Amino acid sequence: MKIALDAMGGDYAPRINVEGALLAVQKSGIPVILVGDQPKIQKELRRSHFSTNLIEIIHASENIGMHEKATESLRSKKNTSMGVALELLRDHKVDAVVSPGHTGAFMALSTLVLKRLPGIERPAIAGCIPTLKGSAVMLDLGANVDCKPSQLVQFAVMGSLYAKIVEKHENPKIGLLSNGEEESKGNELTRQVHQILKTKNLNYVGYVESKEIFKGRVDVVVCDGFTGNIFLKTIEGALSTTASLLKQEIGKRPFSKLLVGMFYLLFKDTLHSLGRRFDYAEYGSAPLLGLNGVVHVCHGRSSSKAIKNAILTASKSVETKFLESLKQELETLL
Amino acid sequence: MKIALDAMGGDYAPRINVEGALLAVQKSGIPVILVGDQPKIQKELRRSHFSTNLIEIIHASENIGMHEKATESLRSKKNTSMGVALELLRDHKVDAVVSPGHTGAFMALSTLVLKRLPGIERPAIAGCIPTLKGSAVMLDLGANVDCKPSQLVQFAVMGSLYAKIVEKHENPKIGLLSNGEEESKGNELTRQVHQILKTKNLNYVGYVESKEIFKGRVDVVVCDGFTGNIFLKTIEGALSTTASLLKQEIGKRPFSKLLVGMFYLLFKDTLHSLGRRFDYAEYGSAPLLGLNGVVHVCHGRSSSKAIKNAILTASKSVETKFLESLKQELETLL
Repeated sequence: MKIALDAMGGDYAPRINVEGALLAVQKSGIPVILVGDQPKIQKELRRSHFSTNLIEIIHASENIGMHEKATESLRSKKNTSMGVALELLRDHKVDAVVSPGHTGAFMALSTLVLKRLPGIERPAIAGCIPTLKGSAVMLDLGANVDCKPSQLVQFAVMGSLYAKIVEKHENPKIGLLSNGEEESKGNELTRQVHQILKTKNLNYVGYVESKEIFKGRVDVVVCDGFTGNIFLKTIEGALSTTASLLKQEIGKRPFSKLLVGMFYLLFKDTLHSLGRRFDYAEYGSAPLLGLNGVVHVCHGRSSSKAIKNAILTASKSVETKFLESLKQELETLL
Repeated sequence: MKIALDAMGGDYAPRINVEGALLAVQKSGIPVILVGDQPKIQKELRRSHFSTNLIEIIHASENIGMHEKATESLRSKKNTSMGVALELLRDHKVDAVVSPGHTGAFMALSTLVLKRLPGIERPAIAGCIPTLKGSAVMLDLGANVDCKPSQLVQFAVMGSLYAKIVEKHENPKIGLLSNGEEESKGNELTRQVHQILKTKNLNYVGYVESKEIFKGRVDVVVCDGFTGNIFLKTIEGALSTTASLLKQEIGKRPFSKLLVGMFYLLFKDTLHSLGRRFDYAEYGSAPLLGLNGVVHVCHGRSSSKAIKNAILTASKSVETKFLESLKQELETLL
């Protein structure tokens, strides 16, 4: 197995990308190909004082900046780190691609280079949401703001298989995100999807409310990318506000300064670690499902640990032969 | 001023409703009319040992149960506590109605009895979301799952005026809930609304991400009821899961049992109080905007304190002559 990393994508490239790749190699022994500006990457590798023959560099002269317009960059730039990495995957030189670069550009370029799987209209970003029972696979988290019912059905099939094969959930329960559990709830889109999912040979359990996701009521949550994105960012906002308000509240308590300080330290660490559990980018497992190849996106502000985790998660997809199973399943289920 | 309370609506009626009314009367001196089953209400009043001439009972023989189908109940029941209360408002016998009963039935019945304001297609549920700077008015929180662009524009006008007049935000900033702040973000619905809002004489500041709401970036958040409901329930779920996970985490720390116990007590109280700040039902301020009358909904599981708060919040709407201002504003702005 070999994994290609877009070494120039993301806010802290190439330094954090190179560090992440080295961490992954040290941890797993899986060879990583760094794609991007060779001199810059080499400079970062020299900084690390860690010598390995598991890291290879493949040069790409251009890079898509985080704030560029995806469509324009794709037209004008022909030799980007992202594009070269995806071509390596298309040509079977590597088994997966990981990129913390521009998500929109990565989506578009992946679709262009790798093509969609038969029966899939649009790829979706899947993420692992922590629950009291472990985690649930949720999709789409932001790739498709407006979805057709057929697309959500495809997300259900892909998410369910990802939960089963990569995340090892046995016979995963699929829920459709809605504003209530009763059949009379939902909006126009979910009501149509609900009717179709009931007829499919899937372990579909019906509507799920957002608060029930955290309790682990289902293993797969299906929603459009607009709603999924609002869900994720609401968690982020609620938790960081809670941390700030907790700090204020604690300041009001009649404890000694020392005790308050200790309390805060404890609160802070724990909340930060919980925050990270909720941040799909931070722990790196956001596969782009529906393409003919294993591709994983990371947040633009990923840490080296997040990059490492993304590489390891992508390797799990490869190892478990997820893509092969998905192709077979799609023929039966769609 | 007089306020009518649906004494039979909600999960704990009539006991909690009567207690809430008494708390409101004691606190504010505003007369409250309890509408519902007279003998049952009288029994609860006798329990309280609090004698006041500010409480009046108006009998209504029927009640809409929390799990009934709204449309069927409205057809078959003609003398419900909800309906009689709304008729009092229509006939100018009271100035506002508060109900912790079946929200769908209350919405439908309010629209039937009071009628919509000119220019308003659908009433919306507004709520106050706590932020680091105070609070923001958000609507719709669940009344309308599928919205037309024109409806969201109407929500913006109503929410903005409510924030200004009742919540005392000076020149309130209006944001449209979206998956990113750039103009290129949003879905089909928000993109259309964005274009219309830009042309209106409103303090519209553009798209707002859900995490930014908590920071107090805007004073009014506009969204469809499906998204608003998911937003609210995500907060609820994230906070209660955080509380549970905190408990687990704390259990792992190498502190003495006593200290852990103290920590947990502190966490628990603070998180519960934060949770309540986020629960629009608990603090009772969820006006139904767009009707020709002041009506406030409460959660079916409201506490007596929540009922009290709902009555006081409704009285603020009456006191500030919000409805009169709204009628004027609608003529100019829509």
